[in-house]
Amino acid sequence: MAVNLSAPESLSPVSGVRLSTVAAGLRYQGRDDLLIMEFVPGTVSCAVFTKNKFAAAPVIQAKANLAQSAPRALLINAGNANAVTGERGLQNCQRSCALVAELLDLQSSEVLPFSTGVIGEQLSMPALEQGITDACNGLTGSEDNSGAQWENAAGAIMTTDTVAKACSAQLDIAGQTVTITGIAKGSGMICPDMATMLSFVATDALVAKPLLEEMLSRATEASFNRITVDSDTSTNDALVLSATGKAMTAPLASWHSAGAEEFYQALERVLVHLATAIIRDGEGATKFVRVEVINAAQVEDGKAVAYAVAHSPLVKTALFASDPNWGRILMAIGKAETANLDPTVLGVAVNEVDIVAHGEPAVGYSEAAGQAAFAEDEIVIRIDLAQGSERYHVWTSDLSHDYVSINADYRS
Amino acid sequence: MAVNLSAPESLSPVSGVRLSTVAAGLRYQGRDDLLIMEFVPGTVSCAVFTKNKFAAAPVIQAKANLAQSAPRALLINAGNANAVTGERGLQNCQRSCALVAELLDLQSSEVLPFSTGVIGEQLSMPALEQGITDACNGLTGSEDNSGAQWENAAGAIMTTDTVAKACSAQLDIAGQTVTITGIAKGSGMICPDMATMLSFVATDALVAKPLLEEMLSRATEASFNRITVDSDTSTNDALVLSATGKAMTAPLASWHSAGAEEFYQALERVLVHLATAIIRDGEGATKFVRVEVINAAQVEDGKAVAYAVAHSPLVKTALFASDPNWGRILMAIGKAETANLDPTVLGVAVNEVDIVAHGEPAVGYSEAAGQAAFAEDEIVIRIDLAQGSERYHVWTSDLSHDYVSINADYRS
Repeated sequence: MAVNLSAPESLSPVSGVRLSTVAAGLRYQGRDDLLIMEFVPGTVSCAVFTKNKFAAAPVIQAKANLAQSAPRALLINAGNANAVTGERGLQNCQRSCALVAELLDLQSSEVLPFSTGVIGEQLSMPALEQGITDACNGLTGSEDNSGAQWENAAGAIMTTDTVAKACSAQLDIAGQTVTITGIAKGSGMICPDMATMLSFVATDALVAKPLLEEMLSRATEASFNRITVDSDTSTNDALVLSATGKAMTAPLASWHSAGAEEFYQALERVLVHLATAIIRDGEGATKFVRVEVINAAQVEDGKAVAYAVAHSPLVKTALFASDPNWGRILMAIGKAETANLDPTVLGVAVNEVDIVAHGEPAVGYSEAAGQAAFAEDEIVIRIDLAQGSERYHVWTSDLSHDYVSINADYRS
Repeated sequence: MAVNLSAPESLSPVSGVRLSTVAAGLRYQGRDDLLIMEFVPGTVSCAVFTKNKFAAAPVIQAKANLAQSAPRALLINAGNANAVTGERGLQNCQRSCALVAELLDLQSSEVLPFSTGVIGEQLSMPALEQGITDACNGLTGSEDNSGAQWENAAGAIMTTDTVAKACSAQLDIAGQTVTITGIAKGSGMICPDMATMLSFVATDALVAKPLLEEMLSRATEASFNRITVDSDTSTNDALVLSATGKAMTAPLASWHSAGAEEFYQALERVLVHLATAIIRDGEGATKFVRVEVINAAQVEDGKAVAYAVAHSPLVKTALFASDPNWGRILMAIGKAETANLDPTVLGVAVNEVDIVAHGEPAVGYSEAAGQAAFAEDEIVIRIDLAQGSERYHVWTSDLSHDYVSINADYRS
C-alpha cells in the first residue's frame, strides 16, 4: 500500500512527443511492459545514469549513444534488467536499438535503451522484437490524446511498483503555454545516486542544451538524489529529460532568460513529485518520512546525519511499529560519520513534538505525545545540530514485514 | 532461532575471578538481569568501547574510571541502557559504582559500570541498589564452582539474545594450565565498531598490560570488528579483557615470551567464537553468512566490498528466501565505495558454486546449483576481485520477517 499516493490523473500531453505501449510478454502477463517514446527532430535531451559499477548493458549503450547523437527515441522494457548479461546482453541491446531505428527511420545511435527488472537473465529476443514492431506501429502523438497515453506509459515501466507514477506541470512563458510531463518507476533498491529507478520527463519548452543540463543536474540533486528506501543502488537507473521546443519560439538560453527560473521551479516540482512518489510507494512502505537536519556546520554534516538516520534499520522498524523508541534516532545520529556533532547541544523533534533538547530528554516530553507523533503516516524527523546554519533533508520510508516479503518472495 | 548455536557447555572457571548474578527486576521478570564480576588485586584489564557519539552514561563513567584505576569489579545490568539519560543518568551510574565499592571495600573508580537495554529511560535506583547489595553478598569464586556461575553470568546480560553466549579455552604455558573464559551478549544493532554488544573475557594468565592491550586490539579487529547484523552501532558497547595472573608465576611480557603467541591464538579463538555467536543469534537470523573478498588490490577495497554486500538489505532478503537472486550480490559489489573494482574480471561463488566469472555468468552455472547453495544455513559468499593479493572477510546474517518483528514489536 503506497502512502498517500494515487494513480496519476489529468496528465498533459507534450507536443512533439509520440508514445506507444504494448504487452511484449517479457515477464509479466496481461499488462503492457514495453514503452517507446519518440521525439520530433531538434529535441534536446540530457540524462543522469546510475553510478553502480555494474552498469547494465542498456546503461552502457545509452551512454554511448547519447554521446554520439541527439536521441530521437527511447525504448524501455520492464521485467528484465539486461544486467550482468555479458557480451550477449550488450548485443541484444544493440539489436533492439537497431530494430527501433529501422522501423522509425532513425540512426541506431538515436535510440536510447532502458531496462528494469530481474538481473542476470538474457532478454527473450523474439518477444522483444515482436513487441518493438507492434509498439512502433502504434505510436500516437500529443494531437491524438489527452494524456491517457502518458498514464499507459507510466504503467508500462512498473515492476514492483503498486501505483503508476506520473506528474504534469504547466506554465506560461511569453504568452505560450509550456508543459512538463514526467513518468517514473521504482520502489526498491532506492538510494542515491540513481537507484532502481527510471524516469522520463518531456517538455515542449525550447531550452538550450547547456542550460537544460544545468537544470537537470540541479533538480536531480533536489529530488532523486535525496531519496532512500534501503540504501541499495541499482545497475540500471536513469533519468532522461527531453525538450522538444514545440511550444516556444524563442529559446531559454540562460538562467537570465525570461521564464527560465519559473521553468526550473516547475521542473523541480515535477521531479520532486516523481521522486517522493517512489518513496511513498517504497517496498512495503507504511510511512512517508522526511529526515531534516538543520543548523549544521556544513551541508556535508547534515547529509551524513540525515542518511545515517534514514538508512538505520532500527529507526525504520520503530517507525513501522509507530513506536516512539526515539533512542534509536539518537543512536543513528551518533553513528553518523561527521566530526561536527556535539551530543550535548543537539535537539530532535518528531512531527513538532520535542523529544531531545540540548542532548537530554526534552522537558515536557510525554510517551503519549511521542506515540501520537509516531502514529502519523507522514513523519518529519527534525534534527537540530546547533552548530551552524546549513541544512539538508532526505526522504525515506519505514521497514516493514512487507519489505521482507516483497524482496524474499518475489524475484523482481 | 539461532543458526547452529547452542547454549554454552563446560565452561572453565578462571582463578582470581568471583561472580554473582541476581534478578534485580529492572525490566525483565523471572530471570537474572544483574551481574557483578570481582577480580583479585593485581588484575590487569583493558577495554574497547563504542565509537557512537552518544556514548551512554556507563560508557562515559567506565572510560573515566579505567583511566584512573585498575578495575577490581564490573557491574553489568540488562534491560536498561542508561543512555541519553543526561546528568541524572550519569549520577545514577556513579551512585551504583559507589555502592559496589562500599560493599566490596574498593574505591569507586575501581568499579566499571555497563548497561544494555532500552535507551532514554532512567534506571530504577531502588531496584538496582537492592540488586547490587544482593549480588555483592552472593559473590562466589572459582574454587566454589565448575563454570556454572559463568553460564549464569552469560544469561544475566542477555537482552534480545535467544541463546547465552560463552566460551572457554585452555592452554599450557610453561607447565601451567591457563584458562580464558568469556561471555558476550548482543544480537541487534550490531556493526563495527562495537555494536550493541557487551563482552567480558577473563583469564588467569599473567600478562603485562601493554602486551594485553595489543592482544585485545588485534583480536578485536579479527572478531568483533568484523560482524554486522544491521549496520547499526550502539551507544553502550564494550569489551573488557581482564587477566588475574593467578595461574602463572612469570608474566608474558612481550610477543617473544614463551607461550605468548599460543595465548594470543587462544584469545582470538575465544573472541571469534563470541563474535560469531552474536551473528548466529542475530535478530531473526536464519543464515550464518561469511562474505569473503579475495585478491583485492588493497585491504580497504576488500573491506568496502565485503561490507557493501553484508549491509545490503536486498542481498539479505534473498538469503533469507534461499533465492539464488545473485544479481543482487553484483549490485551490492557495484555500489561499494572503492576505485579498484573492474566488473569485467570479477568472480563470485556461493558455497563453492561459481556464479560469475570474469564479470559474466559462469559457464556451467545452473539455477538448480544456485538454489542448492543458497538453501544452506551456512553461506560463504566468495568475491574474487582479481586485482591483487589482499583479502578481507566479515560475518553477517540474513534479513527475515523475524528481524522486523523483533524490532518493531519489542522495545529492547
